Amino acid sequence: MQQPIPASPLNPPCVINCAWYDDRGGRRHIALDDIDEYLAREDGFVWVGLYEPDDAVLAIVQREFGLHELAIEDTRKAHQRPKAEYYGNSLFVVVHTAQMVEERIRYGETHAFLGPRFLMTVRHGASLPYTSVRARLEREPEMQALGPSFPLYAVLDAVVDNYLPITDRFGETLDLLEKDIFSESYRRQTVMRLYELKRELNKMRLAVSPLQDVLAQIQRNPGLLMHDEVRPYLRDVLDHAVRIDDSIDTLREMLGTALSVNLSLVTLAQGETMKRLGAWAALLAAPTLITSWYGMNFQHMPELGRPWAYPAMILGVGVACFVLYRLFKRARWL
Amino acid sequence: MQQPIPASPLNPPCVINCAWYDDRGGRRHIALDDIDEYLAREDGFVWVGLYEPDDAVLAIVQREFGLHELAIEDTRKAHQRPKAEYYGNSLFVVVHTAQMVEERIRYGETHAFLGPRFLMTVRHGASLPYTSVRARLEREPEMQALGPSFPLYAVLDAVVDNYLPITDRFGETLDLLEKDIFSESYRRQTVMRLYELKRELNKMRLAVSPLQDVLAQIQRNPGLLMHDEVRPYLRDVLDHAVRIDDSIDTLREMLGTALSVNLSLVTLAQGETMKRLGAWAALLAAPTLITSWYGMNFQHMPELGRPWAYPAMILGVGVACFVLYRLFKRARWL
Amino acid sequence: MQQPIPASPLNPPCVINCAWYDDRGGRRHIALDDIDEYLAREDGFVWVGLYEPDDAVLAIVQREFGLHELAIEDTRKAHQRPKAEYYGNSLFVVVHTAQMVEERIRYGETHAFLGPRFLMTVRHGASLPYTSVRARLEREPEMQALGPSFPLYAVLDAVVDNYLPITDRFGETLDLLEKDIFSESYRRQTVMRLYELKRELNKMRLAVSPLQDVLAQIQRNPGLLMHDEVRPYLRDVLDHAVRIDDSIDTLREMLGTALSVNLSLVTLAQGETMKRLGAWAALLAAPTLITSWYGMNFQHMPELGRPWAYPAMILGVGVACFVLYRLFKRARWL
Amino acid sequence: MQQPIPASPLNPPCVINCAWYDDRGGRRHIALDDIDEYLAREDGFVWVGLYEPDDAVLAIVQREFGLHELAIEDTRKAHQRPKAEYYGNSLFVVVHTAQMVEERIRYGETHAFLGPRFLMTVRHGASLPYTSVRARLEREPEMQALGPSFPLYAVLDAVVDNYLPITDRFGETLDLLEKDIFSESYRRQTVMRLYELKRELNKMRLAVSPLQDVLAQIQRNPGLLMHDEVRPYLRDVLDHAVRIDDSIDTLREMLGTALSVNLSLVTLAQGETMKRLGAWAALLAAPTLITSWYGMNFQHMPELGRPWAYPAMILGVGVACFVLYRLFKRARWL
Amino acid sequence: MQQPIPASPLNPPCVINCAWYDDRGGRRHIALDDIDEYLAREDGFVWVGLYEPDDAVLAIVQREFGLHELAIEDTRKAHQRPKAEYYGNSLFVVVHTAQMVEERIRYGETHAFLGPRFLMTVRHGASLPYTSVRARLEREPEMQALGPSFPLYAVLDAVVDNYLPITDRFGETLDLLEKDIFSESYRRQTVMRLYELKRELNKMRLAVSPLQDVLAQIQRNPGLLMHDEVRPYLRDVLDHAVRIDDSIDTLREMLGTALSVNLSLVTLAQGETMKRLGAWAALLAAPTLITSWYGMNFQHMPELGRPWAYPAMILGVGVACFVLYRLFKRARWL
Repeated sequence: MQQPIPASPLNPPCVINCAWYDDRGGRRHIALDDIDEYLAREDGFVWVGLYEPDDAVLAIVQREFGLHELAIEDTRKAHQRPKAEYYGNSLFVVVHTAQMVEERIRYGETHAFLGPRFLMTVRHGASLPYTSVRARLEREPEMQALGPSFPLYAVLDAVVDNYLPITDRFGETLDLLEKDIFSESYRRQTVMRLYELKRELNKMRLAVSPLQDVLAQIQRNPGLLMHDEVRPYLRDVLDHAVRIDDSIDTLREMLGTALSVNLSLVTLAQGETMKRLGAWAALLAAPTLITSWYGMNFQHMPELGRPWAYPAMILGVGVACFVLYRLFKRARWL
Repeated sequence: MQQPIPASPLNPPCVINCAWYDDRGGRRHIALDDIDEYLAREDGFVWVGLYEPDDAVLAIVQREFGLHELAIEDTRKAHQRPKAEYYGNSLFVVVHTAQMVEERIRYGETHAFLGPRFLMTVRHGASLPYTSVRARLEREPEMQALGPSFPLYAVLDAVVDNYLPITDRFGETLDLLEKDIFSESYRRQTVMRLYELKRELNKMRLAVSPLQDVLAQIQRNPGLLMHDEVRPYLRDVLDHAVRIDDSIDTLREMLGTALSVNLSLVTLAQGETMKRLGAWAALLAAPTLITSWYGMNFQHMPELGRPWAYPAMILGVGVACFVLYRLFKRARWL
Repeated sequence: MQQPIPASPLNPPCVINCAWYDDRGGRRHIALDDIDEYLAREDGFVWVGLYEPDDAVLAIVQREFGLHELAIEDTRKAHQRPKAEYYGNSLFVVVHTAQMVEERIRYGETHAFLGPRFLMTVRHGASLPYTSVRARLEREPEMQALGPSFPLYAVLDAVVDNYLPITDRFGETLDLLEKDIFSESYRRQTVMRLYELKRELNKMRLAVSPLQDVLAQIQRNPGLLMHDEVRPYLRDVLDHAVRIDDSIDTLREMLGTALSVNLSLVTLAQGETMKRLGAWAALLAAPTLITSWYGMNFQHMPELGRPWAYPAMILGVGVACFVLYRLFKRARWL
Repeated sequence: MQQPIPASPLNPPCVINCAWYDDRGGRRHIALDDIDEYLAREDGFVWVGLYEPDDAVLAIVQREFGLHELAIEDTRKAHQRPKAEYYGNSLFVVVHTAQMVEERIRYGETHAFLGPRFLMTVRHGASLPYTSVRARLEREPEMQALGPSFPLYAVLDAVVDNYLPITDRFGETLDLLEKDIFSESYRRQTVMRLYELKRELNKMRLAVSPLQDVLAQIQRNPGLLMHDEVRPYLRDVLDHAVRIDDSIDTLREMLGTALSVNLSLVTLAQGETMKRLGAWAALLAAPTLITSWYGMNFQHMPELGRPWAYPAMILGVGVACFVLYRLFKRARWL
Repeated sequence: MQQPIPASPLNPPCVINCAWYDDRGGRRHIALDDIDEYLAREDGFVWVGLYEPDDAVLAIVQREFGLHELAIEDTRKAHQRPKAEYYGNSLFVVVHTAQMVEERIRYGETHAFLGPRFLMTVRHGASLPYTSVRARLEREPEMQALGPSFPLYAVLDAVVDNYLPITDRFGETLDLLEKDIFSESYRRQTVMRLYELKRELNKMRLAVSPLQDVLAQIQRNPGLLMHDEVRPYLRDVLDHAVRIDDSIDTLREMLGTALSVNLSLVTLAQGETMKRLGAWAALLAAPTLITSWYGMNFQHMPELGRPWAYPAMILGVGVACFVLYRLFKRARWL
């Protein structure tokens, strides 16, 4: 994934963004080491955006923002489950991100640290940069005055919005698989892809399901970290997450039903095959019995000598086969 | 769906109704732009009914009623899950509607904004207009004095009442499918329709299940938005929603059982087919063995020369087949 | 269901009972229109028992007891789910009744209105009259002094006691079906009856399961409607309801297991059938191969000319069949 | 089950034990009718142990201990679910007991009444007498000073300890059944015993599962009935009950998996059988086709006249069968 | 498992560690009998580490630390479920440990007693010694000043960290089994190993699932036993435990799906086998019918005498077989 050029040459490349946003809608790029100066001012907040930062940068931001060792450790190692944890007067949020990249789902993590006057977002793995979020902040300068909890909301909103096309894709995949299941031909491929889909759904659920708790926890938090005007926005994001979780649950359940329906249809088709085989076997066995009959070597089988016997026997076989064929057709065995 | 003529030529066509209801049972059509004048009066409430409003109309009502940007955004985009949200002193409710239209279930959404002196209902997609609700208000003018929470109840009541015929239809469909399952003939069609029904039930459940929380939340709300005399009515609607949800759950469970019963019966039928095939194969194979026997070319097979041998052999084959047939009949293989 | 003669000629036939019970164990039949006079007295309570009352009677009791319009509406329409609702200082209870009538389960509803000085019970559908409850009240006059909550308990106790023989019957049905499942013969009938039983259990559960909430809610209610000495009795009824619910749950689970065990056994039996068919096919095919062999027309098959060839071949076929038979017996294919 | 000789000839045979335990570790057998005298003393408690008491004895203890009519009624009828109920200042506990008696599980009930200065235990059905508990009391006289809640704990501890060998036995049964499932031979017996085990587990769960609530309720009870030093002991019993419940749940789940694994293996084995049958059919059908070929009566089949034709044909059949055999072996059909 | 040499010759071999840690980072090995002297000091804590201690040692530590008889009894017997229990002002914690030892999972138990100035850890069964934890304490002497709750955290952290490679291994096993399931060959072995994996997962869940409650309970405990700065660390361990539990749940669910997918594929493969058998049977039966036909002994079968008849018939059989073969190929039966 291509990374944008760092916002300022003052900082190492893993620092995607490091800026001070004042309450009047202004914005200034700053160096990591100057953060403490800006934190001391009361008329704005600092937002630092990192992508897979190295230990040196993490050490700097830990010192500048006064972050707890455990949270920094989590951020360094990544591979956390979605969670929201309070360390003193700062909030540590972990969410999983998911994007469709070239027809495949790529998972990543975004960690966020929210303080009274700062927001730090750290991206890991496949994850789009939050340039759209920064652009939104520029478009809505009055929101900037709400403090760092507004960009945190905007980041979470972007994360959840990225889930939607994936669940839509899951739904389309299931629709295609349903068509395969209900088509006459049963293929191993269909069952294998149902299993694949189940695995993807489970993975997705591990990202979305705890996210609901995280969002509910952040939104309800009685502290001052979250601006009251931002809460309804977070409730909106939570609502989207719940809707995505509902979709996943419904898909999971339909998938289970699809599997058992598939088994029913395969068994049904097997019974059909058996009937068809039986019917054809009968159509072959009946004339075989007759021909075998006239292959007997009894000296006194008067019909063998009659000149009309052979044509009559051919006719008999033909009629027998025709009658059997009609019978099997009527019984739907053929 | 045919839309009624707007209540007043003062307003654009997407405004189905815009009226002021006073505490004495009176009613007056008003223009959207005059709403603020009527909101200032203390002896009645304004009810605006919209159908898929355009942005211009939404902007007017947002300004007139002082609605929150997020709620208006939700209403503009539709596709929300059922929810009840408080924005300051107004309540925003989303419910899903469902109707049988020409043998098919059509889903829609109704959004409602309730304030101390106003109600705004916005319909999306397939949804009957709430003329019946307005007619009820005219029939019961004493209810009009309870304020805008009574027509909100009436709208929710109408929505839930429309669910009932659909779940009844689901029940009838399952009854028909059960008959198919227990009939002698197993058809792919039956399994496919069971799957269809499962999908419809899941869709319906996504509409009804969160509705229970929504109704419980509105009914218990301690604020002043909801008139105390309206609460028992809301509890009644909640009760209906719970009953519909129970029906859906029961149907879902019976459907799962129907699927596994179907598999059992199909497997059982397969075993029956196998037995019948085996019995017929034996009935054909036994005479074939005998005819094959007398087709041997040994020079010293004394019976071949006897004149009574052929008729005796015919008799023997006949008796053998008859005995086998009786045996298989008794063992229920035929 | 035959209705007893109304307790008093003063009232219409749908009024099964209308009496005033004083605190000293006395009892007096009264007319519906006199209820208000007796409600004014402090030394007893009124109990009215109705069976599918018409609107006129309901209007009278609503006026006399001051009941809420919604509760009366529910009672008029019936088809409610079990619930307990408080309207001001009166309690409205709905429970489902079930009885075995001529080997079939008949469901009904009983609605009860409890006030500080009155009890009204309304029966709908198949339901035994509560004469036994009234007899109990006469046998235990000291309980009469506890007020109308004691006969309410007695009614609920009778309702729950009527469930017991039905769940016992369900258990016996499952026992019979188990025997069928484990018998050698697999019948469509067994699976169909398992499905029937599942449906009956689900229906029963819809009656019993919410009843537990209803009873717990009534028992815990802190108000004065429920006499403190009646609470332990209600806890006893709740206990019975929980036990019945446990039975139903266990039956439902065993039934699910029975269905999957049945499928396993049917599949197993199918495999057995296949083996048996295969063994018999081999027993027929082996001599057929031999007879076919000696039906060949080679001019130089020396054995065909030998006089002992035919008897030797008969012996050979006999031995081959016997050996095969023993082999298949040992492998348990026959 | 053999009953020990009643502790004192003063009392009827259903009274297993009736004694006064003083705070200094002393113990004195007393008559039922003298209980009230001892209850008046403050330096000890009375413990009465009954086995399926008749109504006369129950009437005496009800009067002596002042027990609630409902609890006595429950004790008289037995067949209660496990529960703990408070009647004024006395506690009524019902637990189910289970013992292995001659390789079969026998269920019983123990009811206990606990008052500030008394304990009454009533056993029903298969149940070991609590002589071991009484012996423990004699061994630990300092525990006797904690009052009647200590022997109640000891009784509950003995009940729960008796469950352990049964769940162990269940585990061993499942192990044996697993071996049967994974052995090559599929037997109806295995499936039937899996079903049996499921039924036993469900029965056991009905005893153990509510017991956890009962124990938690008793242990947390804030009243004075339970001596504070006894609480940790009750927590210990609760812990054992939870562990047994965990075992049962795990067994139930493994049993479900075992059933579906069994179905998979049976289906798999069926496919194997089909392949083997097919292979043998081919091995028989190929020579049959050849022999049938040379049984044709064309006048111009030059090979029939050759003297080497018959041996060559025998060789050909042999080679064909061998090649087919090897092919089927390699494809694992044989 | 090899045990390290006891830290001090003062103590019996089952005492792995017995030391006093002062607040300044110092550490001193002490004898068990001197513990009470060190407990009296306020500037440090005692940590005793035991491995399957005998009764004598347990008696000493019970006396020295003043532990409750029940906790000591639990420790002596082991085989407890994970739990956290408060006895007065000391905390008793039981956790299950799991390690991969030579490709097999070995389970053990660690019991911990935490007091205001002491920690005692007791290991049972397969379990690595906590030398790494002691080394960590030496590396971070500032943590030593937080009191004995920090080493308790470190022990729990080590226990949970040891789970991770096991769940990773489970995941790899499932991946391998999936490959087997989706390969063309169906093997009994695959199903058996799926069952094995399910059993292992259930065992692991019994260890991890209650651990979450234990950790949450310890972390939230309002008492003074747990230093406030240690709480975030415990929350971190809890987080890991939750993640492991999520993995196990997902694995369990995928395993269930794998089992049913396997059944579908086996059934599907059976249907394929049946079709292939049927096709080959037809390819053999058609020429057999023809050869049987010309084996008939009618005197007037003109074609039998024609010299081109035999070659023509050979050609006919060849063409018939070829056409059938193509037909079956096209229908995917071959």
